[in-house]
Amino acid sequence: MTDVLALLRDELGERVDTSSAAREDARADKSGHRSPAPGLGVVHARSVADVQATMRIAHRTGTPVVVRGAGTGLAGAANTGPGEIALSLRGMDRILEVRADDLLAVVEPGILNGTLNAELAPLGLWWAPDPASRDISTVGGNIATGAGGLLCAKYGVVRDAVLALDVVLADGTLIHVGHRSVKGVTGYDLTALMIGSEGTLGVVVGATLKLRRFVPGTSRTLTAVFPDVRSAAVASAAVTASGAAPAIMELMDATSLAAAHDLLGLPAPRPGAAQLTVQTDGVAAEDEQATIAAVLSAAGGEVRLAEDDAEAERLWTIRRSMHPAMERLGTTLIEDVSVPRSALPAMFDEIARVERTYGLTIPTVCHAGDGNLHPNFVFDGDEVPAQIWDAADELFRAALRLGGTLTGEHGIGVLKSRWLADELGPDQDRLQRGIKAVFDPTGILNPGKVFRPRI
Amino acid sequence: MTDVLALLRDELGERVDTSSAAREDARADKSGHRSPAPGLGVVHARSVADVQATMRIAHRTGTPVVVRGAGTGLAGAANTGPGEIALSLRGMDRILEVRADDLLAVVEPGILNGTLNAELAPLGLWWAPDPASRDISTVGGNIATGAGGLLCAKYGVVRDAVLALDVVLADGTLIHVGHRSVKGVTGYDLTALMIGSEGTLGVVVGATLKLRRFVPGTSRTLTAVFPDVRSAAVASAAVTASGAAPAIMELMDATSLAAAHDLLGLPAPRPGAAQLTVQTDGVAAEDEQATIAAVLSAAGGEVRLAEDDAEAERLWTIRRSMHPAMERLGTTLIEDVSVPRSALPAMFDEIARVERTYGLTIPTVCHAGDGNLHPNFVFDGDEVPAQIWDAADELFRAALRLGGTLTGEHGIGVLKSRWLADELGPDQDRLQRGIKAVFDPTGILNPGKVFRPRI
Repeated sequence: MTDVLALLRDELGERVDTSSAAREDARADKSGHRSPAPGLGVVHARSVADVQATMRIAHRTGTPVVVRGAGTGLAGAANTGPGEIALSLRGMDRILEVRADDLLAVVEPGILNGTLNAELAPLGLWWAPDPASRDISTVGGNIATGAGGLLCAKYGVVRDAVLALDVVLADGTLIHVGHRSVKGVTGYDLTALMIGSEGTLGVVVGATLKLRRFVPGTSRTLTAVFPDVRSAAVASAAVTASGAAPAIMELMDATSLAAAHDLLGLPAPRPGAAQLTVQTDGVAAEDEQATIAAVLSAAGGEVRLAEDDAEAERLWTIRRSMHPAMERLGTTLIEDVSVPRSALPAMFDEIARVERTYGLTIPTVCHAGDGNLHPNFVFDGDEVPAQIWDAADELFRAALRLGGTLTGEHGIGVLKSRWLADELGPDQDRLQRGIKAVFDPTGILNPGKVFRPRI
Repeated sequence: MTDVLALLRDELGERVDTSSAAREDARADKSGHRSPAPGLGVVHARSVADVQATMRIAHRTGTPVVVRGAGTGLAGAANTGPGEIALSLRGMDRILEVRADDLLAVVEPGILNGTLNAELAPLGLWWAPDPASRDISTVGGNIATGAGGLLCAKYGVVRDAVLALDVVLADGTLIHVGHRSVKGVTGYDLTALMIGSEGTLGVVVGATLKLRRFVPGTSRTLTAVFPDVRSAAVASAAVTASGAAPAIMELMDATSLAAAHDLLGLPAPRPGAAQLTVQTDGVAAEDEQATIAAVLSAAGGEVRLAEDDAEAERLWTIRRSMHPAMERLGTTLIEDVSVPRSALPAMFDEIARVERTYGLTIPTVCHAGDGNLHPNFVFDGDEVPAQIWDAADELFRAALRLGGTLTGEHGIGVLKSRWLADELGPDQDRLQRGIKAVFDPTGILNPGKVFRPRI
């Protein structure tokens, strides 16, 4: 048997890490789920050449490679198991170029989302994708999953914000897809194809990002408290239907709101109360806030306008504390269904039905501005109980019936691969597997993720 | 030999048109180029079932199929030649659903862009892609080419404005890709893959479009006249660099401006003069107009603010008359290069160099807001002279050197396929052909378009 680690060490020296700490760390992501056993080791790539060398050796030896960023994924896509090499891009974190006049930046994939925007801020520029994890997640991870975050309804999803990618293929070849220009339709859109492909088609080693200028004007925040989650969902759908364009509109149900308050040491909210938190921005921020406040009051909400930026920041901290708050309760299986916005009340009805059927509480937070829900199943230990898989299965099928999808932004990974073919149907599943085979004929790129082995 | 026409007539009756008028018409698009000889006939599909029936018969008999909309393409992608069936979707032009609360519409592909927006207007909604041909081009054609048009810098390209597609595959199977929700990352993004695929992967028979609400506020238009095209290009780059966000910013060089004036019976512009026409919109339209006017004056432009909507409309009519004005001069080969906006002056230098080298005049209009240029080569007769191919070749290579692309929105078709592999490089070319083979294993979908046969 070829010793793949020896080959890697010959070329990459100390960047090959086989310590048990590194191998343990690479088994898991933020989903709390782990691979059955550690992988062979971790390559800490520092350059495109490192990635190419790794892939050439992997290709030659038939060794599976799992690409990792900061390990904040929520579907297990970066979990590295027996016989696999973890290829960490976290150390490739430079900004290579910023062009304010062309509204673009060229970056390495390992840079954190928050760091990128902090560096762009003095230039009056920002990159719109805004996952709740922005301070700990990488741009490359964003691209690998298509993790849009909070601002998608107004500012678009990840594929709207990427112009071009540098990609190392399974055999180590480097290609460049996309363009530095706003427009470009030469051949098929491989840039979009790579976005959300979760390390199964190639390794993204560089990204040309489409930037925005700061929105002129101010931003305004309000909250509206509702007696129950359904009324909050009805109200959020009414905001969308009213024609107002909030930058962010987030919904927290009673359990998640209470857990976040508890984590932050805030007074407990009223039992059963659900909350919408809404940000407007731009030169019309105040007018839009007033419009939205009126819609929410009419829908039965108790509205409070944040008095200043400090209060607004406190309100957003509650929302951003949802995941840490859940982590304190146990292991979580975080669903990520997305539905048309008019169907949000119906989707919350389905969640309530599943709660009753299975005797569960399913704390749920929702990007109500774009219809993306994160129902959380909380349990003890590493293994998802069968009953929770069943409940998750019902939720997913409900989202599909409502015209939605299994995953809005977290991706499929391992945790949702059992449903992929159900959503795609057999014909599209076949096409998607065909594309995978074109890019990765020997199946070394993140095998077993996204697509389940056919039986 | 199987009589494919007899089989088609058995299933589709009078919707199969073998008149010589129809077959002649299907040989060409708006590029002015024609296939070497007529095809077998035209199927005027009225339903998804018609398309499926056509593809099943084509699949069974190995007959190539060329999908057509309104025939306004500019790269020859819909030109139908010997042995081929033209499959016209122009008659499938219904709006199936509009959901103002979810900001989406489901349409058939044959609806005209202008008709769609006229139908949406009473609801305060619009679909952003805005090709100059909007009154005569179809939504399906837009999707097939990725034809963004004038509003892309501010309102995005076609793939930002499509949520889901219904696609009939080469063997007649119907699949649905994408979602009705804003977000969705289940599997690879086949919706984006279909957009711009020019009939080579499948037949788009339905589209779920992402709509926008009317931009609140007004719109304002100005023109700025410059002594030469380079100063106009420098000024347009200065507008982008200034942070202003025009909705539309169009540049016409001296020859195209003069030709449009002539077509419309307007007084001739000053010799050599180039013109920028700029629209701002939204609640800050007037402020932004003032900012842009100041930038353009400082750059040496002679600025005129349109006094009212009627004057603005007259100014935009000049821009939209570019293609008809060119058609009067002869047959045109319309280039479609796109470059980063800071490189616009350099690209105009390259155009001037090619004009000098080849002793040509290359009238050029440019979506200066997004960096997409349309240099026009005008000649007599049906065949592009070799010298013009050489000049076009130099222009294309210049755009690539500047970080741009061969085609911003018109697509590859037949007219640009000779350069496809040059831009993609051999590795990406191989991947793209691999994807084509997954979708169209027997090669019946628009063969010879986009990809040249390998020698």
